[in-house]
Amino acid sequence: MHVPDRRGRITLLSDFGTADGYAAAMRGVIASLAPGVEISDATHAIGQGDIRGGAAALSRYWDLFPSGTIHVAVVDPGVGSGRRGLVVAAAGRCGVGPDNGLLEPMLAQAESVREIRNADLWRHPVSSTFHGRDVFAPVAAYLAGGGLFPQVGPVLDDPIRLAAATPSVEGQDLVGVVTHVDRFGNLVTSIPAARLSPGAVIQVAGQAVGPLHATYSDVDSGALVALAGSTGFLEIAVRDASAASRLAAGRGTEVRIRLAPAP
Amino acid sequence: MHVPDRRGRITLLSDFGTADGYAAAMRGVIASLAPGVEISDATHAIGQGDIRGGAAALSRYWDLFPSGTIHVAVVDPGVGSGRRGLVVAAAGRCGVGPDNGLLEPMLAQAESVREIRNADLWRHPVSSTFHGRDVFAPVAAYLAGGGLFPQVGPVLDDPIRLAAATPSVEGQDLVGVVTHVDRFGNLVTSIPAARLSPGAVIQVAGQAVGPLHATYSDVDSGALVALAGSTGFLEIAVRDASAASRLAAGRGTEVRIRLAPAP
Amino acid sequence: MHVPDRRGRITLLSDFGTADGYAAAMRGVIASLAPGVEISDATHAIGQGDIRGGAAALSRYWDLFPSGTIHVAVVDPGVGSGRRGLVVAAAGRCGVGPDNGLLEPMLAQAESVREIRNADLWRHPVSSTFHGRDVFAPVAAYLAGGGLFPQVGPVLDDPIRLAAATPSVEGQDLVGVVTHVDRFGNLVTSIPAARLSPGAVIQVAGQAVGPLHATYSDVDSGALVALAGSTGFLEIAVRDASAASRLAAGRGTEVRIRLAPAP
Repeated sequence: MHVPDRRGRITLLSDFGTADGYAAAMRGVIASLAPGVEISDATHAIGQGDIRGGAAALSRYWDLFPSGTIHVAVVDPGVGSGRRGLVVAAAGRCGVGPDNGLLEPMLAQAESVREIRNADLWRHPVSSTFHGRDVFAPVAAYLAGGGLFPQVGPVLDDPIRLAAATPSVEGQDLVGVVTHVDRFGNLVTSIPAARLSPGAVIQVAGQAVGPLHATYSDVDSGALVALAGSTGFLEIAVRDASAASRLAAGRGTEVRIRLAPAP
Repeated sequence: MHVPDRRGRITLLSDFGTADGYAAAMRGVIASLAPGVEISDATHAIGQGDIRGGAAALSRYWDLFPSGTIHVAVVDPGVGSGRRGLVVAAAGRCGVGPDNGLLEPMLAQAESVREIRNADLWRHPVSSTFHGRDVFAPVAAYLAGGGLFPQVGPVLDDPIRLAAATPSVEGQDLVGVVTHVDRFGNLVTSIPAARLSPGAVIQVAGQAVGPLHATYSDVDSGALVALAGSTGFLEIAVRDASAASRLAAGRGTEVRIRLAPAP
Repeated sequence: MHVPDRRGRITLLSDFGTADGYAAAMRGVIASLAPGVEISDATHAIGQGDIRGGAAALSRYWDLFPSGTIHVAVVDPGVGSGRRGLVVAAAGRCGVGPDNGLLEPMLAQAESVREIRNADLWRHPVSSTFHGRDVFAPVAAYLAGGGLFPQVGPVLDDPIRLAAATPSVEGQDLVGVVTHVDRFGNLVTSIPAARLSPGAVIQVAGQAVGPLHATYSDVDSGALVALAGSTGFLEIAVRDASAASRLAAGRGTEVRIRLAPAP
């Protein structure tokens, strides 16, 4: 894990909202321990306890930040229990958070994973309900300030992973699921856009969506449109409206592609 | 367009929310391309596709930032279509975003407008649905890092403008509209406060609002109050409550001023 | 009041939301007046006019930031009236905001309080509805840039204070209230956790909550749990759900502790 020699950078993701001051508390701890480090709020609007939603958000940005960035992620319903904390080094960046799958996008490319065990790096007394402030923020500050990755704790061989949503083949169909619904009601799916042939027939929750288009405005306002999303997966949208509402679809809804249309 | 010699500064406005990680993706791209630049989130809470709402927000802050600031604004329902992107230089600041009227407050004072055409400055491959990440953020990073304005693309003579909400005169009345409803339910109008005489009679949606006051607390809690808002336009509020709810008013609702009251 | 010699730091708290551009306007004013100062958004999501909610948020983070940090807080329903503005120096940090109790967490530890009276430090013309932009932001920029605390205005001996929610003793019972409901529906109370004995019987709104536990996951999902919260006060939660909804409780709801259970 190479930490940049110039100015450290930390991003924060949580399900805390901002109105209670919890997110600002994490910022304050980092600012005190590593005053020169730049702190970016990625988001504090993840749904309460929504580990998959947090992982989906993280997947959008973690590798776009410069090498050396420390990504803190705290969606942590098991805080204070036996659940472990971890740091993960991947593609020159570092993730810090609970061992509950939240850091999946980085674990999928991990070079090294360690359990957070070195209590000398924490803020004391450690509360049983706010490890974001007392454990993860201080560890992130330590790393962003040039701390050594192995000092955080021992190697962790078995971090908790989120089951990958790999599409399956059923006869002539490729079958996947909606993995994420975004603010616009767009349905992000588990189907890599590269696997779609031009004549593919797309169904969501049993409803035909029409052929693959290039962008939203290829269809009329209010019409369904299938397209390759900005992270390379098939997305289903309604132009100027919500596909999630239109199709009564959500995370886990079946997406079925007939690759070779029936004659 | 003078770019400051010290530390570049970029602000971000969008309708992305933060929970999906799209806003953080823009931050990450900028941080990678222009590591020393300061990035401020202005807002990511503009209503989905609400170009006028985005322009109203931008109007509140763009010229308060220091000369040299780059303002990125992305409310972009036409992304991936033929709609153009533009950069606008105004009063020493620069705007970057889609050519759909969103940058109206800066276009109204533009010294120079150019179309974003130089693909060498973009992030590749360019998605068809997320130009915030792939086009606008990299162009902003280029400018904030000292890039040359004319390098972005050719002069654009006909940017799309929002129709100005200029008040009209009808007999003894000055007639305007509500241009914006803020979080407090305050109604911002198109009537310059300077045009109001002390005895002016103010009506919103046909309902009398009472005379012009100096501030909210000039009336009792729960009462309607007309005042000169913080950007110089007539505003209608209800002290400690929402004027939008009370008057069933919204953007476009008629505001009528009788400048010389009938005898 | 010692202002740090390196880089100033300002945090912002308000009830403005972000979508109207008011929060960004404050940022812009500070960036123009004190370009090298780091600006952190603590939150702009305080409920409209909710002074107690703002004070609760501030209490979570103000003393976690480094010495020298300037905390601006604007929840200001009395803006433009006779209400005073103040600066408060406490534990090496400085608070800036209206004199309405919002800065209570810092006032409780104040070394010095001054009224904001030196109009030379303000932005002119001063609006009657947006002192966040025109008064508090410029004063904060002045202080963060190394300005002298006494220059802001004269000593203020009688700042408005929020009544402390001190628990009372009724026979064998310790009686307090819910002081804050957070985003998770957790009920923060006025009872210091240190006053709870292991066998204490806890009631909220007349409903038994069960004994004190260490953390959320000490009970089953969906069960009520009482614990010592992250700021040292008794909190009532429901694991993976909202205690506020379950108990129909909110700010002010009675919390009663039987310290010595009846035989």
